[in-house]
Amino acid sequence: KVHRVACIPGDGIGVDITEAATRVLNTLSTVLKTFEFDFTTFDWSSKAYLERGWYMPPDGLDQLKKYDVIYFGAVGWPDVPDHISLWSLILPIRKALNQYVNVRPTSILPGTKSPLADCKREDLDWVIVRENSEGEYSGQGGISHEHSEHAVATEVSIFTQVGIERIMRFAFDTARSRPRKKLTMVTKSNAQRHGMVLWDKVFYQVAKDYPDVSTDKMLVDAMTVRMVLHPTSLDTIVATNLHADILSDLAAALSGSIGIAPSSNLDPTRKNPSMFEPIHGSAPDIAGKGIANPIGAFWSAAEMVRWLGETEAADGLMKAISNVTAAGVKTKDLGGSEDTKGVTNAVCKEIEKL
Amino acid sequence: KVHRVACIPGDGIGVDITEAATRVLNTLSTVLKTFEFDFTTFDWSSKAYLERGWYMPPDGLDQLKKYDVIYFGAVGWPDVPDHISLWSLILPIRKALNQYVNVRPTSILPGTKSPLADCKREDLDWVIVRENSEGEYSGQGGISHEHSEHAVATEVSIFTQVGIERIMRFAFDTARSRPRKKLTMVTKSNAQRHGMVLWDKVFYQVAKDYPDVSTDKMLVDAMTVRMVLHPTSLDTIVATNLHADILSDLAAALSGSIGIAPSSNLDPTRKNPSMFEPIHGSAPDIAGKGIANPIGAFWSAAEMVRWLGETEAADGLMKAISNVTAAGVKTKDLGGSEDTKGVTNAVCKEIEKL
Ligand SMILES: CC(C)[C@H](C(=O)O)[C@@H](O)C(=O)O
Ligand SMILES: CC(C)[C@H](C(=O)O)[C@@H](O)C(=O)O
Repeated sequence: KVHRVACIPGDGIGVDITEAATRVLNTLSTVLKTFEFDFTTFDWSSKAYLERGWYMPPDGLDQLKKYDVIYFGAVGWPDVPDHISLWSLILPIRKALNQYVNVRPTSILPGTKSPLADCKREDLDWVIVRENSEGEYSGQGGISHEHSEHAVATEVSIFTQVGIERIMRFAFDTARSRPRKKLTMVTKSNAQRHGMVLWDKVFYQVAKDYPDVSTDKMLVDAMTVRMVLHPTSLDTIVATNLHADILSDLAAALSGSIGIAPSSNLDPTRKNPSMFEPIHGSAPDIAGKGIANPIGAFWSAAEMVRWLGETEAADGLMKAISNVTAAGVKTKDLGGSEDTKGVTNAVCKEIEKL
Repeated sequence: KVHRVACIPGDGIGVDITEAATRVLNTLSTVLKTFEFDFTTFDWSSKAYLERGWYMPPDGLDQLKKYDVIYFGAVGWPDVPDHISLWSLILPIRKALNQYVNVRPTSILPGTKSPLADCKREDLDWVIVRENSEGEYSGQGGISHEHSEHAVATEVSIFTQVGIERIMRFAFDTARSRPRKKLTMVTKSNAQRHGMVLWDKVFYQVAKDYPDVSTDKMLVDAMTVRMVLHPTSLDTIVATNLHADILSDLAAALSGSIGIAPSSNLDPTRKNPSMFEPIHGSAPDIAGKGIANPIGAFWSAAEMVRWLGETEAADGLMKAISNVTAAGVKTKDLGGSEDTKGVTNAVCKEIEKL
């Protein structure tokens, strides 16, 4: 069986870690022999944009639709305003391919630790389900009186019954699939009294269909306190596009490093390819130095493999990652002294033992 | 000299800690003998609302304008939807009285510690300057097709040149007044491409007037990572209404407890009274039990006293608070075993030594 993967390395360390991830994925298929990957790489990046004036060609989104999945590195580069780069590449893909769910698991890998003094490995095991298609990332809004002293700009967050309901159902299904069957819904409906109130309402509507899932509701500000002071009290979390963006970075930091955190942009209907990317950015400061932590990229690759139905391979890759961190083969952000290549070699070696 | 203080205890533990704070303030004036407080208490609360149907009377905001300052406890109660209670009380006050700045200092008190393993007391000393009049708290937006399967709701964030410029100037002045002269600006202008881009632009414009202040820019998601992993790299922080709401709760948690964190809602023009409140909420679960941590209320009171020009009294109160926590007289959230009264008594005793 051949899985066709569209690869978009993008910018900065996105290039380093995508290379590492494809090496690991190829090793996995070579060792397991039950499937193959057919990678196609797209040079849609800020570097290319600066040279030729565009990220994706006009039919870029249609090209992507032909693949089974998309693997994404990172986008963003100092010479291009961030809102240009992101709205030219990652955000249109998430939206056009109906990837309305972004799943962000967080846990503390063996051989690593939380920066929190009292947080042991088993104390932190979360899945953040992020709404990925609307909310604060609708792109709507504008500016009037630009360049004047009375300029006024707006950001318009859009929340729809349909959009909220589908993310809630996904979150409840996720919570249900986990041992604790516990879902925490995050909101800011005290200060934001329109869209966030609808968000709350739909949550309670959908909850009725999941009597076996226990629920609670948190305001996003108080949620950060709970994540820091009572990590064990949380399991599955559902939040808006922006809230979950913030909380998932915090979650990654509390699990030790943003460098290990994976994310899956899913179209649960499977009508379009889903996209897998580490949650870290392009990290211009360390780009090209070969020292980026590739674990977030490998974990994202494992999620991709699982989505493709290759459960054994996904489990194997996760085991390889765990064995490597457990053995202390880690980059600097995790307190180790290895570089990208060192960690990648170690993971490949572990895969060969599968 | 008499300082006229409007007191709004509000809901839940707001009542407990406002009582404690007025006791401490009265002790302070009795001991120092250089000024007096004249407190007027307003029963504007959710309890009153449930009885009589309103929080503030129609001329409530005008009544408040007659005072030198406002002391606020907390608002929010399970029997009233949060967006009703907040938009009936705290948010209209902040807006109508032009309290466009919300200052939120964070540090680790003597005798207490951060939940972060490697964070010593001197490693965390931040001031968050929060935009308090517009942005995500504009209140604008609405809902269409309510109660239908295709309901659509919006939250509209408003950012104005005037609103951004004044908060940036306040933030730069704050940064300049501190030894490190360092300001970190928080944004999400990669995903939010209208108002947040204006936010960034005005920041760089204003920065030109403060060449002695060093600056950097962070995306709000990455900012949480930096707060957790590199707390020492931060000093003064400026962020939007929502971003700073989230970051200041996180900051409080990282300093040990949300129960110690103060906030000042300032009208820097001094044309309207400013308002001082701990950042914690009404905490229905522990309301009326006499166990709330009053330190955030005392610290907020100290900020109020400083705003009133009583510098010696403000320093004295902060010293009293520090001596009490240093002596281990603390509530449970800080790892102690005292109740509200115990801590309040101890602070009053320390004040008597001034
Ligand atoms: C790059 C950026 C648009 C993105 C986001 O905000 O969604 C990133 O922070 C993420 O979390 O995936
Ligand atoms: C009570 C609520 C409106 C408030 C806010 O979000 O501003 C609170 O969380 C705060 O931080 O002061």
